[in-house]
Amino acid sequence: MNPLRANVENLGESVFPSPLAGRHPEAPHPNTFIRDSQFVPLHITIDLDRDREGNVLFERAGPRERIYFRPETTRAAIVTCGGVCPGLNNVIRSVVLCVRGHYGVNEVLGVRYGYHGLNPETGLPPLELTVESVSDIHELGGTILGTSRGPQDPKAMLEWLRRRGVNILFAVGGDGTQKGALEIARAARVAGYSLAVIGIPKTIDNDLQYVSRSFGFSTAIDAARAIIDVAHNEARAVINGVGLVKLMGRDSGFIAAGAALASGEVNYCLIPEEPFELEGAHGLLAALRRRLQRKAHAVIVVAEGAGQTLAPQRAAERDASGNLRHADIGVFLRERIVEYFRNRGLPINVRYIDPSYAIRGLAANTEDAILCDMLARDAAHAAFAGRTGVMIGTVHNRSIHVPIEMATQSRKKVDLGGEMWRSVLAVTGQPALRPPGKGSPGKMVRGREEKLHG
Amino acid sequence: MNPLRANVENLGESVFPSPLAGRHPEAPHPNTFIRDSQFVPLHITIDLDRDREGNVLFERAGPRERIYFRPETTRAAIVTCGGVCPGLNNVIRSVVLCVRGHYGVNEVLGVRYGYHGLNPETGLPPLELTVESVSDIHELGGTILGTSRGPQDPKAMLEWLRRRGVNILFAVGGDGTQKGALEIARAARVAGYSLAVIGIPKTIDNDLQYVSRSFGFSTAIDAARAIIDVAHNEARAVINGVGLVKLMGRDSGFIAAGAALASGEVNYCLIPEEPFELEGAHGLLAALRRRLQRKAHAVIVVAEGAGQTLAPQRAAERDASGNLRHADIGVFLRERIVEYFRNRGLPINVRYIDPSYAIRGLAANTEDAILCDMLARDAAHAAFAGRTGVMIGTVHNRSIHVPIEMATQSRKKVDLGGEMWRSVLAVTGQPALRPPGKGSPGKMVRGREEKLHG
Amino acid sequence: MNPLRANVENLGESVFPSPLAGRHPEAPHPNTFIRDSQFVPLHITIDLDRDREGNVLFERAGPRERIYFRPETTRAAIVTCGGVCPGLNNVIRSVVLCVRGHYGVNEVLGVRYGYHGLNPETGLPPLELTVESVSDIHELGGTILGTSRGPQDPKAMLEWLRRRGVNILFAVGGDGTQKGALEIARAARVAGYSLAVIGIPKTIDNDLQYVSRSFGFSTAIDAARAIIDVAHNEARAVINGVGLVKLMGRDSGFIAAGAALASGEVNYCLIPEEPFELEGAHGLLAALRRRLQRKAHAVIVVAEGAGQTLAPQRAAERDASGNLRHADIGVFLRERIVEYFRNRGLPINVRYIDPSYAIRGLAANTEDAILCDMLARDAAHAAFAGRTGVMIGTVHNRSIHVPIEMATQSRKKVDLGGEMWRSVLAVTGQPALRPPGKGSPGKMVRGREEKLHG
Amino acid sequence: MNPLRANVENLGESVFPSPLAGRHPEAPHPNTFIRDSQFVPLHITIDLDRDREGNVLFERAGPRERIYFRPETTRAAIVTCGGVCPGLNNVIRSVVLCVRGHYGVNEVLGVRYGYHGLNPETGLPPLELTVESVSDIHELGGTILGTSRGPQDPKAMLEWLRRRGVNILFAVGGDGTQKGALEIARAARVAGYSLAVIGIPKTIDNDLQYVSRSFGFSTAIDAARAIIDVAHNEARAVINGVGLVKLMGRDSGFIAAGAALASGEVNYCLIPEEPFELEGAHGLLAALRRRLQRKAHAVIVVAEGAGQTLAPQRAAERDASGNLRHADIGVFLRERIVEYFRNRGLPINVRYIDPSYAIRGLAANTEDAILCDMLARDAAHAAFAGRTGVMIGTVHNRSIHVPIEMATQSRKKVDLGGEMWRSVLAVTGQPALRPPGKGSPGKMVRGREEKLHG
Repeated sequence: MNPLRANVENLGESVFPSPLAGRHPEAPHPNTFIRDSQFVPLHITIDLDRDREGNVLFERAGPRERIYFRPETTRAAIVTCGGVCPGLNNVIRSVVLCVRGHYGVNEVLGVRYGYHGLNPETGLPPLELTVESVSDIHELGGTILGTSRGPQDPKAMLEWLRRRGVNILFAVGGDGTQKGALEIARAARVAGYSLAVIGIPKTIDNDLQYVSRSFGFSTAIDAARAIIDVAHNEARAVINGVGLVKLMGRDSGFIAAGAALASGEVNYCLIPEEPFELEGAHGLLAALRRRLQRKAHAVIVVAEGAGQTLAPQRAAERDASGNLRHADIGVFLRERIVEYFRNRGLPINVRYIDPSYAIRGLAANTEDAILCDMLARDAAHAAFAGRTGVMIGTVHNRSIHVPIEMATQSRKKVDLGGEMWRSVLAVTGQPALRPPGKGSPGKMVRGREEKLHG
Repeated sequence: MNPLRANVENLGESVFPSPLAGRHPEAPHPNTFIRDSQFVPLHITIDLDRDREGNVLFERAGPRERIYFRPETTRAAIVTCGGVCPGLNNVIRSVVLCVRGHYGVNEVLGVRYGYHGLNPETGLPPLELTVESVSDIHELGGTILGTSRGPQDPKAMLEWLRRRGVNILFAVGGDGTQKGALEIARAARVAGYSLAVIGIPKTIDNDLQYVSRSFGFSTAIDAARAIIDVAHNEARAVINGVGLVKLMGRDSGFIAAGAALASGEVNYCLIPEEPFELEGAHGLLAALRRRLQRKAHAVIVVAEGAGQTLAPQRAAERDASGNLRHADIGVFLRERIVEYFRNRGLPINVRYIDPSYAIRGLAANTEDAILCDMLARDAAHAAFAGRTGVMIGTVHNRSIHVPIEMATQSRKKVDLGGEMWRSVLAVTGQPALRPPGKGSPGKMVRGREEKLHG
Repeated sequence: MNPLRANVENLGESVFPSPLAGRHPEAPHPNTFIRDSQFVPLHITIDLDRDREGNVLFERAGPRERIYFRPETTRAAIVTCGGVCPGLNNVIRSVVLCVRGHYGVNEVLGVRYGYHGLNPETGLPPLELTVESVSDIHELGGTILGTSRGPQDPKAMLEWLRRRGVNILFAVGGDGTQKGALEIARAARVAGYSLAVIGIPKTIDNDLQYVSRSFGFSTAIDAARAIIDVAHNEARAVINGVGLVKLMGRDSGFIAAGAALASGEVNYCLIPEEPFELEGAHGLLAALRRRLQRKAHAVIVVAEGAGQTLAPQRAAERDASGNLRHADIGVFLRERIVEYFRNRGLPINVRYIDPSYAIRGLAANTEDAILCDMLARDAAHAAFAGRTGVMIGTVHNRSIHVPIEMATQSRKKVDLGGEMWRSVLAVTGQPALRPPGKGSPGKMVRGREEKLHG
Repeated sequence: MNPLRANVENLGESVFPSPLAGRHPEAPHPNTFIRDSQFVPLHITIDLDRDREGNVLFERAGPRERIYFRPETTRAAIVTCGGVCPGLNNVIRSVVLCVRGHYGVNEVLGVRYGYHGLNPETGLPPLELTVESVSDIHELGGTILGTSRGPQDPKAMLEWLRRRGVNILFAVGGDGTQKGALEIARAARVAGYSLAVIGIPKTIDNDLQYVSRSFGFSTAIDAARAIIDVAHNEARAVINGVGLVKLMGRDSGFIAAGAALASGEVNYCLIPEEPFELEGAHGLLAALRRRLQRKAHAVIVVAEGAGQTLAPQRAAERDASGNLRHADIGVFLRERIVEYFRNRGLPINVRYIDPSYAIRGLAANTEDAILCDMLARDAAHAAFAGRTGVMIGTVHNRSIHVPIEMATQSRKKVDLGGEMWRSVLAVTGQPALRPPGKGSPGKMVRGREEKLHG
């Protein structure tokens, strides 16, 4: 075994004793500080029959006994970017409570409307975040800071931060946001400015590498499950009722797969990772017809990024974050199903639901509330440990420091040979929706041991 | 005061003592039976300065001391028609529990898939409904019987009922279903067959006359409120965010109005009863622009039947129930708003949600559970009292017998001069979205004293 | 018919035009102002066979065209008293939005911790309530103002109000609070100080006269229903499982009855209005034993004020509001049931739940949110109409002005001969739990036409 | 590194090809079968500075390519024991769907009322479980099979199973149930009867070793969080309000700790693992007094097994499962707090909530639904792989086979030096509630790397 270490950037030596140590001087069980020598491996399943393959070791996240910044003279800022996601306000609250309440920082700035608010030209003044002003915000969905999409010039953002004396920046967002955070960290290093940039991963789709479960995901499948159950009620109330639910998942089918597992009522779960066909004896339409003949109702869940080779492409449109705009697979499927049955003179009742915007703005559920709190606190600890260009990740339920560069090299996908997808196939009973031998999902298997809840 | 009586059809004299009387022989407080001389007036507010206008008296619903059918030799059937609605299974359950458990009827048939299942040609056998088989169904959305749209031949349906010896038919459905029920009742009278046909009003839109609140409506505004709150979170998280929620309400705006009141976050509530314009200084688009300049976000709720003169008509399409298909006002509004702001070079972020199919299949909430139970029991009492061609209604929280003919003459509308709409205007602060003097909503005011919860 | 008018006190002539009239000058449908000649009768069911008995007419609540106070120079205050109840923050919010936003008042004071905060000696400064500061509070349970029990000296409270130039006081609370409000109104009249005191009824038990449904009640039965369902799951999972749920209801059984109806799983519903016995062939214990022999599980719901002659009395303890402390009937029943079965060598598994404090602090549900908003607005209108010593009530879904003196003369009770209790008996199937002829519930029937939801 | 293998008992060689292989013959991505050589280590964090300590390897759970039982001639049974827990019906449903639907077994028996139903003397006939009869049960809390506490004679139970030709027994329950399952497995081996006994761990307290998160736990903290929030609303609505919530956790504080983290509103979290004192300057009462002086309200969460040295012991009472009955720490704390403040003439308002029986009978939430499904399916796979005396566990989100003997040697505890407790201390800000140096929690640290969600 020859483990690879995922090295993280460090601003320098930590010389200050942590204020957390002194928090409860009388405590017989002091906070267990994390030693810098502690690591968490990426893969853990061991096959005694095979060669042990190379592993990757990640630095454990958590509070250090010595810290890099002197809290009284440190100023922090937090920015939320990209789409709305359940838990953003929980993250903001816990960052403020930890950085101000536990470390004793005197000022935390809340950047308005994403990186947009770090652009000096917009002139948007930041919010002053205090323990009092954030005390109830975890009850609310959305983000009290506002958010936006798209990049801004790293140097301009660094300038904004320097001008306000900010030494710690927490950047909450997805792939693009993390890349932007890394650019700010690099610009700071070039400029010789001591700035800890810590990424907090935010992707409701749960598609970031080295983040076993991102916040908002549990709330999303919670809500999606409820909607699938309603679609199921609709479908079985009429002859040949088909509940068709489009869920989030531009590149990865985690929400669709998780909701299918949680509901137990889904018959076809269509995700970006698994190609499928509409026409032909093995296609979805014929499979659906066979099922309706047997059962008279069906429920289909489709991730927004599924079946993109089927739907007519929009001319390479991109949104403000630079994401390729997908054709609307849900609307497309609805039309094709209705057309297919109408052409055959068969009755069909398709109930189509596209709940994405009714999910993203929800308040965090219990699981996500706990997760947000942990991520936010570990981000604060990482910053005070002097790390930069680092994102808080989780593998096997351990918080880790992931170099942003490493985290943004690829997207996490549902492993078609893994436990989650195997469970989905078991629960749905769905066949392969394409001729034998066609498609090469093997090539798509990026991760290895994607886990159900991991 | 010269009250008008709403006369209901009666199968004949009630000669049997009710089994309900004997249920608790030891009870010092016997069930208070309803006397046939008890009536409930339609209007109750009295203006001492004005002439008292003619009133309409409705027969009170409830158990009678003497009943028309001998329970042991009576067979009942229940059918659910039209769209899925929260509470259908509660109604089925309570009808069965009352008719079998309280009256002692030995057989209740559950007709499959609406009037479709009463057509002898379809050959769909009914379900046998027992106290055990319905005991847990109130936990589920949808209808265990199935449903369908569209009429069937009354004589054929009567034939189906006669062949199975059915003397009581409960027809759960909206306007069209009630008209169909009346036709069956009339065919039975012509044929000299003793059949009590009792309508149980079902309209998630709450648009049936003499039904102050129909079941499913409370669940619908409950769910709609939650979705509006999410839309609000989305809207205020971005610059110029607009949450646009389309709600049910083909001809009446009760759901949109009720959800706007419950949420308290809606800025524009658009309903079929109140004409509005898009263009011009008084139009919605200009009003929205002014609001975004002041507040940077807005929430719009639009009933599916609102603004039908604005959206390009589909060529008079009708659904299977014969309802005129509306152009999709939600999609239309979204496109016009985006276009309007894009043309002016203003940023805009519209989040559009169309949750109808995520609402109709929900299980009944607490209010609706209670309401369904009461309606179902009063329907059973009406049947045993020998009434027919009658629908169970409610005015001022009293259950009443409404002649179906009277109930289906017009639809209930939001009274633009009444308390509910006045409350909506107060809560939203929305202006009249058309030039002064234009539009004649006065003509649309059908009801008089539509009440908030009534 | 010789109707009695419920006269309300009036500060004097209303001379100012209402600012609400001018709110939408272009509106073709102006706010329909209420005329002072409009009344709502107390009883509405008419028996054509019997003499029409005397009725009581209540003045309709709602906005008047002319108002008594000039908004710009008026100062309002709001106080919340007694136990916590879902909807308090909704009421506060809507009062502020209406009084400041619609009428244009410049200052609304939030009195801290009930009448306690109106006592000049406590020195508790009030909160300044603005449209911004109340904008999100309806999402939270509890009361942002705080509350307390018990009376304070009316003259001292008047002094507090005068010193701050308050002309309108909204008092949110139950029986005791309303009496206190009336005393303040009387003290003001004696002192010749122009003060409108408007009561907003708050009783989670729903036991105030002339208030068909008080806010918080719907949320309470919502939560109680969910808990009963869980108790039912516990009960039927074990042999001779008994789910025993104690619910709020010191003097009236509305919550117990409403929750029993909503759940549909309750076998015995015990309320203060209906005496019952434990021992003997007709008693609860023998009835329970018979049921367990048949079904092996049961669910009992008991209101806190039920069976008070059975449980050993505490020595006339009273709480800070002066309410008599009841013996804990829930704990008492649990012990007696366990003892009864143990003595007979029969297995028994009692699951006891007392959820009161898990209910009162909930945020308002949809129904209550709408109700609170309406009550609050009608209270504002009543104050501006110059009414005082008046509480906002509702009969037959119409908002009315009830003289506080009239409202506090007796408590509303479940009518044992009315529809609600008849429905409970039908749903539970419970027998009279005492020997025939014993008990005289007839004497207890106070109201007449208590309605299910009324 | 010298890993220890956790060896599991095996009935013999697996010779039959799995029917799961052939399920989708056309599938390009066959089910990835688990190889018997795959193991999952117990500990994963690596400290590069320290010696790598001995690790324990667990066999991975999941489907095998070859199976031990021929499905067509195999009969399975399932039994649920101990307290009610969210998810029991989900487990039953998924076991039936997998064993009948996927493996093709023809009969699955549902044993009634726990091990009680395996006692031939009770004569309770089992339920026949089919795909249809279990299709909707996951919507319901409780267990459709019934449950009971306490052991039965292993030989008698084996006799019951043999007489019905049962070859696979799934035993769902906690510590005692698993020990009973192991005894049955041993009795079968002694008798030479080929019986696979597979334990499915059930503990709402989450206190089973090698089970990172047991089903029901997520639902429990979900519900507990909601109740804590209500207690918080109660507490801050009155002067010196104290919300006191007792939660489940006889030996381990996971529910109390998890709910405290999720809520973010708890000030003192008291668990069995961490000793605390009431009296003295460092005790809870003085700490509470100091907090009330500063903030005027507080929320305390106490696990039922906390502070057992403080409350007067009941004379070593045990329940039917043999668990020591605890004194009721919640009632005890309430009384002591009231007494302490009353003696000092300080006002206090304690709101005490004991919601345990309102939680255990809930239906599973989304997380638990997914978890139950996975556990049930892995249990079926373990049985078909010929394993026996084995419980399905999870470490680091991997399903594993745990020898029951190993799983029942000790209980899982909250690691006072681990991440979860560190997070609780950070979120509550609670001090050590005992004098410095007193108590020796170090000795109590059983597990090592207890994780937040693990």
